[in-house]
Amino acid sequence: MFAECGIRLTAEDVGNIEVAGFGLGELDVQGLELITYVNNDRYCAKELLLFPRQTCPEHLHPPVGSDPGKMETFRCRAGKVFLYVDGEAAETVQAAVPAGSEAYYTVFHEIELNPGEQYTIMPGVKHWFQAGDEGAVVSEFSSTSRDEVDIFTDPRIERIPVVEEDL
Amino acid sequence: MFAECGIRLTAEDVGNIEVAGFGLGELDVQGLELITYVNNDRYCAKELLLFPRQTCPEHLHPPVGSDPGKMETFRCRAGKVFLYVDGEAAETVQAAVPAGSEAYYTVFHEIELNPGEQYTIMPGVKHWFQAGDEGAVVSEFSSTSRDEVDIFTDPRIERIPVVEEDL
Repeated sequence: MFAECGIRLTAEDVGNIEVAGFGLGELDVQGLELITYVNNDRYCAKELLLFPRQTCPEHLHPPVGSDPGKMETFRCRAGKVFLYVDGEAAETVQAAVPAGSEAYYTVFHEIELNPGEQYTIMPGVKHWFQAGDEGAVVSEFSSTSRDEVDIFTDPRIERIPVVEEDL
Repeated sequence: MFAECGIRLTAEDVGNIEVAGFGLGELDVQGLELITYVNNDRYCAKELLLFPRQTCPEHLHPPVGSDPGKMETFRCRAGKVFLYVDGEAAETVQAAVPAGSEAYYTVFHEIELNPGEQYTIMPGVKHWFQAGDEGAVVSEFSSTSRDEVDIFTDPRIERIPVVEEDL
């Protein structure tokens, strides 16, 4: 999918693709594939990939010390993304909330992003997003990323995988 | 060139393409075309385009108040870029220094960037770059951009165009 929309990756990039299943065991429904190009104490850039109708679950980026929380800009590169944030709910929500997880999707102000369109999410704002029927590739430009502090609405979620050591 | 490498732009983006000739009157030799996707007080993202062998002149990003200076990551998306920074000079410099401006190119530590390759330039480090024979498209991820404070080696350069009003 990255190659199809012209995004060139090195062999090292390919080896570093992160597959985030959020500990839910249903990657195709709730999950995200990503490459972190750079993440330092000033800024971060990632390339996100969503399979058709794959959903990144609702979460927010809290303040951490002197950092007011991650601020991020999503720019759709290919496909279509339905993004939901705090605010007036859409009359008709175009995404389908993952079955069995309805309780953990609470914000429904809809932003539809097509290729070349972008939206900036302020710190502390709850959000979730789902690709359209063809999937999506999204560039994320942001302040420093600290995934381990993200707060998910669904208490079952573990953003950073728990490694079970075989002792 | 953006379209050829799969970068989708809105009509608004196209209207906002910045053509930077640096006041030198030889855009094809020393110049840069760019779109700023986002620039806020925390991070910035731009898409840069260089014509074949077009050169962005040598400059650095100084500290501004509490900001230690712009830090930036260049990721080559298409074509080829020869990037030069402070450090041990390359034995054979692959770029051609613009004729008549030799005095204003002083750093020759060479980094060659092909599609998918990237390099991060720390604040205060002098740098310049030139596209290969096919031109280049480069994503720039960075801290806040304040182009007006950039320090160019060539004293003839005006980064922000001087508008002569017709009164």
